[in-house]
Amino acid sequence: MRIAIVGATGYGGAELIRLLNHHPEVEIVSLHSSSQQGTPYTESYPHLQEIIYNKLEEINPEEMAKNVDLVFLATPSGISSKLSPELVAQGLKVIDLSGDLRIKKLEDYEFWYKKCAAPKETIDAAVYGLPEWNKAEIKKATLIANPGCYPTSVELGLAPLVQKELIVEDSIIVDAKSAVSGAGRSLSAISHYTEMNDNFKIYKVNQHQHIPEIEQTLKGWNGNIGPITFSTHLVPMTRGIMSTIYVKAKNKMTIDQLHELYNEAYENKPFVRVRPKGVFPSTKEVYGSNYCDIGLAYDERTGRIMIVSVIDNLVKGAAGQAIQNLNIMMGLDEKTGLNFVPVYP
Amino acid sequence: MRIAIVGATGYGGAELIRLLNHHPEVEIVSLHSSSQQGTPYTESYPHLQEIIYNKLEEINPEEMAKNVDLVFLATPSGISSKLSPELVAQGLKVIDLSGDLRIKKLEDYEFWYKKCAAPKETIDAAVYGLPEWNKAEIKKATLIANPGCYPTSVELGLAPLVQKELIVEDSIIVDAKSAVSGAGRSLSAISHYTEMNDNFKIYKVNQHQHIPEIEQTLKGWNGNIGPITFSTHLVPMTRGIMSTIYVKAKNKMTIDQLHELYNEAYENKPFVRVRPKGVFPSTKEVYGSNYCDIGLAYDERTGRIMIVSVIDNLVKGAAGQAIQNLNIMMGLDEKTGLNFVPVYP
Amino acid sequence: MRIAIVGATGYGGAELIRLLNHHPEVEIVSLHSSSQQGTPYTESYPHLQEIIYNKLEEINPEEMAKNVDLVFLATPSGISSKLSPELVAQGLKVIDLSGDLRIKKLEDYEFWYKKCAAPKETIDAAVYGLPEWNKAEIKKATLIANPGCYPTSVELGLAPLVQKELIVEDSIIVDAKSAVSGAGRSLSAISHYTEMNDNFKIYKVNQHQHIPEIEQTLKGWNGNIGPITFSTHLVPMTRGIMSTIYVKAKNKMTIDQLHELYNEAYENKPFVRVRPKGVFPSTKEVYGSNYCDIGLAYDERTGRIMIVSVIDNLVKGAAGQAIQNLNIMMGLDEKTGLNFVPVYP
Amino acid sequence: MRIAIVGATGYGGAELIRLLNHHPEVEIVSLHSSSQQGTPYTESYPHLQEIIYNKLEEINPEEMAKNVDLVFLATPSGISSKLSPELVAQGLKVIDLSGDLRIKKLEDYEFWYKKCAAPKETIDAAVYGLPEWNKAEIKKATLIANPGCYPTSVELGLAPLVQKELIVEDSIIVDAKSAVSGAGRSLSAISHYTEMNDNFKIYKVNQHQHIPEIEQTLKGWNGNIGPITFSTHLVPMTRGIMSTIYVKAKNKMTIDQLHELYNEAYENKPFVRVRPKGVFPSTKEVYGSNYCDIGLAYDERTGRIMIVSVIDNLVKGAAGQAIQNLNIMMGLDEKTGLNFVPVYP
Repeated sequence: MRIAIVGATGYGGAELIRLLNHHPEVEIVSLHSSSQQGTPYTESYPHLQEIIYNKLEEINPEEMAKNVDLVFLATPSGISSKLSPELVAQGLKVIDLSGDLRIKKLEDYEFWYKKCAAPKETIDAAVYGLPEWNKAEIKKATLIANPGCYPTSVELGLAPLVQKELIVEDSIIVDAKSAVSGAGRSLSAISHYTEMNDNFKIYKVNQHQHIPEIEQTLKGWNGNIGPITFSTHLVPMTRGIMSTIYVKAKNKMTIDQLHELYNEAYENKPFVRVRPKGVFPSTKEVYGSNYCDIGLAYDERTGRIMIVSVIDNLVKGAAGQAIQNLNIMMGLDEKTGLNFVPVYP
Repeated sequence: MRIAIVGATGYGGAELIRLLNHHPEVEIVSLHSSSQQGTPYTESYPHLQEIIYNKLEEINPEEMAKNVDLVFLATPSGISSKLSPELVAQGLKVIDLSGDLRIKKLEDYEFWYKKCAAPKETIDAAVYGLPEWNKAEIKKATLIANPGCYPTSVELGLAPLVQKELIVEDSIIVDAKSAVSGAGRSLSAISHYTEMNDNFKIYKVNQHQHIPEIEQTLKGWNGNIGPITFSTHLVPMTRGIMSTIYVKAKNKMTIDQLHELYNEAYENKPFVRVRPKGVFPSTKEVYGSNYCDIGLAYDERTGRIMIVSVIDNLVKGAAGQAIQNLNIMMGLDEKTGLNFVPVYP
Repeated sequence: MRIAIVGATGYGGAELIRLLNHHPEVEIVSLHSSSQQGTPYTESYPHLQEIIYNKLEEINPEEMAKNVDLVFLATPSGISSKLSPELVAQGLKVIDLSGDLRIKKLEDYEFWYKKCAAPKETIDAAVYGLPEWNKAEIKKATLIANPGCYPTSVELGLAPLVQKELIVEDSIIVDAKSAVSGAGRSLSAISHYTEMNDNFKIYKVNQHQHIPEIEQTLKGWNGNIGPITFSTHLVPMTRGIMSTIYVKAKNKMTIDQLHELYNEAYENKPFVRVRPKGVFPSTKEVYGSNYCDIGLAYDERTGRIMIVSVIDNLVKGAAGQAIQNLNIMMGLDEKTGLNFVPVYP
Repeated sequence: MRIAIVGATGYGGAELIRLLNHHPEVEIVSLHSSSQQGTPYTESYPHLQEIIYNKLEEINPEEMAKNVDLVFLATPSGISSKLSPELVAQGLKVIDLSGDLRIKKLEDYEFWYKKCAAPKETIDAAVYGLPEWNKAEIKKATLIANPGCYPTSVELGLAPLVQKELIVEDSIIVDAKSAVSGAGRSLSAISHYTEMNDNFKIYKVNQHQHIPEIEQTLKGWNGNIGPITFSTHLVPMTRGIMSTIYVKAKNKMTIDQLHELYNEAYENKPFVRVRPKGVFPSTKEVYGSNYCDIGLAYDERTGRIMIVSVIDNLVKGAAGQAIQNLNIMMGLDEKTGLNFVPVYP
């Protein structure tokens, strides 16, 4: 499989390169960017000296169609909505890591993203690439909307309970914490070192654009799920997301029933690891890997279930999941080239 | 006022020294520890060279009574329960920074702390030192149970809503995040640098000993408050706590009403700063100071109120609040010696 | 003393405000900036809510002369060279925290700073504000060139040996490490959180503009001092500089002689703390304070002396030293308002 | 190749497992520890859930010889000196990651390590495993003394200049900076999170046990090399070493000559990357990989050469280099299983 990466200078693009370098069936043919064209990629990322020799190229769908089979879009929101249709029109497969193709209701996209939505037929054609729960559709897809980082952790964390309709529908509260790489490589006050080091921040209160994505997925599983509360915080670290999720059980449960439910749901899903009873994951335990680790608690005092879900936002939350989708689209084992052991410590 | 500090080698003790060094009415007479007696304090804390010349001394209530008026206990739990009665018997005033004297029901203390409780008469005599809401009692006290770090942030964050009975009683969920200094200076795997750096952890799930303290205070304001959900996380930073608090409003509110309520409640309370509408504090904005900063949100989609409350766990969450209590006990302005500007960045 | 701060939105300006808030003899009258005029200062620095009520004002020397006695310039290089002469012409005293007035040879300034130098008479009038070794001149000055952060640590570290001509003149190697706040509040790739966290960098190799400043001061003490090797690194932390300095002793020394030399040299200089034999300072041990801490070693195997010198780059390396200079200019005790205990941990 | 790891609970052991998991020719048969025997390895390292199923086993050379061909010793100093002879006596190949077998002069080992040396015949048989400069010997070895982390960075940094006798022999000064994982997983005050975060420390001044190792290697290349100055600092980060090395050139050089020298020396050595002129590596650019990256400068003002050498202390400084040695011993390409792209950011 010959591939190109658009938006290669961002962290999502760099992570695709790191991971694909181990993939036995994929060749990185070209790297594209809207700026710095003609400069060696290693000027942007010197850690790839003697590994990547490409220069950055312009974004020309027609030319790309001559050389590659599939394009990863690792672009900011607002790019893919225009570019994806052009690439698809050239017969290319596309995996879009941005949020542009995830929201099925155009007006919802425009409300939360404050941008024009992609054409309706593009949105309709895009398959939501959450492999654990959407494998059959992904297999047949030519256009993938790769899930957001936060939504991946939340949806994998809630799926078994929501699908089985075990929780009070309007009781979902997600307190999510992300590493700073989630804010991207573009300079910004919030990710200036001196402002963020030794600091802990809350941001985009009640306004995060991942809210409609999560609600859409949950409602796809259970139409009665009410609006969720979803808060996002920044942690002074480079990689990792933890979503601490609080829900009310419809009926009394035991912690054993809860574990049984999750163990069964994720039995044959190699990238979700349910932790043993009483054990909870920390973000570093998935660092650099494609795992989503889940810990579970049931508080008899309050009748509340707590789910703790951690991922590496750049891997399972972006580039790793994109490659998992590529594997499924290609008919490969979904683990191909993705057997990274977490980098610990 | 002549004072002694017991447990001076821990972070609470060191912070008392930093703050008291600026206090115009207090003289640090002696520093006490259960170990290292006779060694200069600066061997433990070289940053105090040419500032503190004391040697560590043994803990002898009778001797202490000869030299000082008030004793700060900055000891681990299980010490003050035995030592406080002896110090009080010697006529000394005591401010206890540990959790030993905070829980009024002895069996609750013993259940959550897994330790023997202090004598009932000591517990009864101890005044809970949350100055913003307990000033009159503190003024008359000789024995203060200084609030815990998490409880300080949560109780100040919830007080106006709970006192006015504006929230659904069993709807309180607190997602709290603490810096690592909260785990103390004793070596432990959880606070080993390499395990904690670039990492985010959840710990003591549904088992934190601050749960009964918070519930006791809230129930003191509104007897119907149900059991709370309270989760604690460790952030890779040195100082700071953020409590993100979710509650259900009993009736519809506007964000303006919410701000009015808090602004009124904290109008004459110099260490609580209510942020303007749409602005939320980060932990660094109170670093090294005695402030508790509060941000507020109301989500019309869910009817949930969110309160964000931040403190420096070693100052307003420990040593600073202890000095604020001392000021009130002495009849001084509560701000005396506590006008530290946050160290930012 | 009524003062104004120009360049108030940078970290140097914010630190002046933090420190001056404790100063009994200084009133902050106005804050000036080349942008954001008319906006409340707390929009830039919300941690100062209820502490600072000023709005940012334009930079108008004539107006300033009506309201204040002294102006702090906490501006990037290239501003003070033009502004200082205008302020002085209005009869104002000026303490310049930038590098514009430090280098006596105009061509050296222009070579290293790549900017036009200030007028010769302004440079001539400026007194280098290193209080430990230049107090008499500072007392009479109206225009102070406040030393750079790195130079402060290096010059205090080397003064006793250089002044007594005890080292081989061309043997000085300084390996300096700085926290990221030294790079300022302006956004830049080098201080983007994700690039700097968990990382250690070397920068401006053989090109740092502090080289001529250090050499000028050392040559002022001993004209034979040869060119120095001076390397600068960035440490993933907020505040602090450590300079590890290697020199060759002209003649054999003992470690005791070395300590005696330094203890004597800094006996009555309250902000320099010489550590006991075998003890070396870490940067956190001066965090938030005006101290420069010095550790000493003599290696008999190589005949080399090593001096370890640490400061808080924003205090002794900038705002604190500026206030120390102000105290001396005003005839106050140099410690006035500067008795901050290091914030540890 | 069937292997065992002794000292598996330390960071060196855990890193061997991470890396070997990708190795096509190696099977991890057993993990050994002096404590916790019988407990699943994932209790020590939960990030390996569903990857490693081994339990910790006792250290029994006879038993090990029945099941494996080669043993990695990732033990603290003082263990291998006793254990290596026993393992070798059983016919096992051994790669020792500790410092026990590196120093050829027994009295030097005992002076610097303050421990009893290994038997002379074991020391004599041990081959120093610096593959870039010792490949022929490693090929024939059965017992490898894997180089220390600091020495690896320093020796690779200095080799071309020392081997060609281009520098003044007694002019070597190494200012080395290490991440905290170098201090191991055992709890200690120096690596307590709150003491180390936002801090920068110097330690073991003139006493580091890597001094004799570096001098021995350099003298092996040029017998006249004098004693070196070698200082070690701790950086608040998890992985990485930067050695900033200062030497005096015997004769004038140009920066071009310097680059030519290094490019030639490392032309066919896949894990050493010489950076282009004017570019210097940061530690993160080798994070998680087996690279040693080198930057070069020549200062015409002082006639000094500066070499900047960075590695990941747990990979090229420990586990990765050990596997590189294993590859060479087995007759495999030295890159086998080691093609990790640095994890950036």
